[in-house]
Amino acid sequence: MRIKSVEVIPLNIPLVEPFEIAIGKFSFAENVLIKVQLEDGTVGYGEVSSSGIITGDIQSTAIDIVKYISPALVGESIERYRYLIKKLRSIIKFHPGTFAGLENAILDAYTNYIGVPLYKFLGGASYEIESDVTLSITTPEKATETALSYFEKGYHIFKLKVGKDFDEDLKRVLAVSEAVPDCEIRVDANQGYTPKEAVRFINKLYSKDVNITLFEQPVYWKDIQGLKFVTDHSPVPVAADETVFTATDAFNVARERVVDVINIKLAKCGGVLEALDIIAVAKASGLELMIGCMVESNIGLAPSVHLACGTGEFSYIDLDSYLFLKELPLKGGFEVDGPRLIVKNIKKGLGIEESKKEK
Amino acid sequence: MRIKSVEVIPLNIPLVEPFEIAIGKFSFAENVLIKVQLEDGTVGYGEVSSSGIITGDIQSTAIDIVKYISPALVGESIERYRYLIKKLRSIIKFHPGTFAGLENAILDAYTNYIGVPLYKFLGGASYEIESDVTLSITTPEKATETALSYFEKGYHIFKLKVGKDFDEDLKRVLAVSEAVPDCEIRVDANQGYTPKEAVRFINKLYSKDVNITLFEQPVYWKDIQGLKFVTDHSPVPVAADETVFTATDAFNVARERVVDVINIKLAKCGGVLEALDIIAVAKASGLELMIGCMVESNIGLAPSVHLACGTGEFSYIDLDSYLFLKELPLKGGFEVDGPRLIVKNIKKGLGIEESKKEK
Repeated sequence: MRIKSVEVIPLNIPLVEPFEIAIGKFSFAENVLIKVQLEDGTVGYGEVSSSGIITGDIQSTAIDIVKYISPALVGESIERYRYLIKKLRSIIKFHPGTFAGLENAILDAYTNYIGVPLYKFLGGASYEIESDVTLSITTPEKATETALSYFEKGYHIFKLKVGKDFDEDLKRVLAVSEAVPDCEIRVDANQGYTPKEAVRFINKLYSKDVNITLFEQPVYWKDIQGLKFVTDHSPVPVAADETVFTATDAFNVARERVVDVINIKLAKCGGVLEALDIIAVAKASGLELMIGCMVESNIGLAPSVHLACGTGEFSYIDLDSYLFLKELPLKGGFEVDGPRLIVKNIKKGLGIEESKKEK
Repeated sequence: MRIKSVEVIPLNIPLVEPFEIAIGKFSFAENVLIKVQLEDGTVGYGEVSSSGIITGDIQSTAIDIVKYISPALVGESIERYRYLIKKLRSIIKFHPGTFAGLENAILDAYTNYIGVPLYKFLGGASYEIESDVTLSITTPEKATETALSYFEKGYHIFKLKVGKDFDEDLKRVLAVSEAVPDCEIRVDANQGYTPKEAVRFINKLYSKDVNITLFEQPVYWKDIQGLKFVTDHSPVPVAADETVFTATDAFNVARERVVDVINIKLAKCGGVLEALDIIAVAKASGLELMIGCMVESNIGLAPSVHLACGTGEFSYIDLDSYLFLKELPLKGGFEVDGPRLIVKNIKKGLGIEESKKEK
């Protein structure tokens, strides 16, 4: 079945509140919706998140790139999805977030066309996953209040953004840890520490009996030896986020065991196929896997939820960005029950439903 | 859709002529057919080749293992194929050839059930591949005669078994090379040389202007440093066959760049899913890929043909074992036009057709 059209539509989604990480602050999601339509009317959706500070993709470049390369898709058979994805990559380099949106739309269209839900297409290993919830950099009081409100909704795993101010970070993590004592705490420095600060930070937390399970991207993404230093001196697993985009990056950190865990985000690696390659490298080398997200709606999250459920290979799930959006442009992709993300009732593709508004 | 039954049937297929490699000689294929049937009548086929000297799988153990673990499959949903395959592996270790047969039957049943040919399920990157043809250890005259007969049928790539007698091997390769001068020559020592013999052998051939493109498994499979020595001193790419079974093995050879090429065989790695993982590791680390086979019929070869076509990732194709069998128990899987193996007309699954005999 041939591809009839590729549309690209700006999606401006206001955030519930501004989101701050060590490398910047932003107040709403300027995303992009990609809609691939086949000649028989089958549709596939993908979303590009504006994650310029990480991947170089912003709303306007995403629109430019999709318009530029979509003629290479129109008229081609959706059944040759791997060839199509290779073809797109032979046209233009970088822009992994945009490629992820395009590939997700292609895979959604294809699995809708063959009538198989994506998580089953990927192996159907499980029907649901449990996500953490992310707490941004704020006062200990505000962070504790937010943590308690999520705890009441059933969340047991909290990921705290740190990496901005050593002492303030410590206070905030300790405050949250005391407020929700039986919960799992993860910290994410988003490159904000030096290697030695990072080692001091994680050992300090560990010595305070915080139930800390993961230390994500403590140092500068290019500082491979610094990252290895932290891993070698951390009592808890260290994860690479910004350091690992592709399977080759994963191979290079695995080769020297620079980290214990790789955080896959489709917007970094460019889509599900490359993500499967990273999973393979991690499994082959004994590393654990995390799956994360950019600030994206259920449309962009759905392929990650299906990937995690379908393969069953992820030890750490961080797919919570839909919580921070005031509205969702289209429904579907997965069901939500507190921290549980459930794909069991998806009948085909990603299960994205077109709302009346969008039509 | 649930699995109704798993049958295991001995397949004794006489070889056209006895086949000799450096580590042994055999005169017919004692294989096994696995038939997975779903509750709606959908069928999937897999074949186990008796490759005990490489993988430890022989006909009787394959039958034992399938009977032992098939209760874990019956009643399960075929749509959870990745879960099923993990479940089987959680029951018993090793036996990769038997697992490959089982997994191939599961994937054939699943892709038949969803109505998608396996090569498209894997991405539909291409519709056909070109295989080499293997010439066993014999006199230079006989090898030349065989090469010429295949050349007349359109073959342009010849893989010569070597590794038994340095001087005889050299004479035979030179004789074939002179008889089919514009063709590509590959040599496979099946672990038969010492590292220094291997280096002398490949450089001697290269100095004689033989159009040599690949040197497969020159030394003992466990001799990683010996293999690296050959790779570092060979003017042509060196491939690991027996040295690499799984994605972890691939990672370990890639880490030190022990070889240039990895030869994937489903019977070694245990099936298509692990093969995809090896492909990922090889791509991530810049290694090339070869796909090979045991002595198996079209039933066992079909998943490899679909994998190679579907992914488009293989630089060296060695899927010729069906040529050495006097009869094929079931038809289908792919079409043959000389060295070309074609999947274009497969409508669903592997396209294996049940013959009247088998019914």
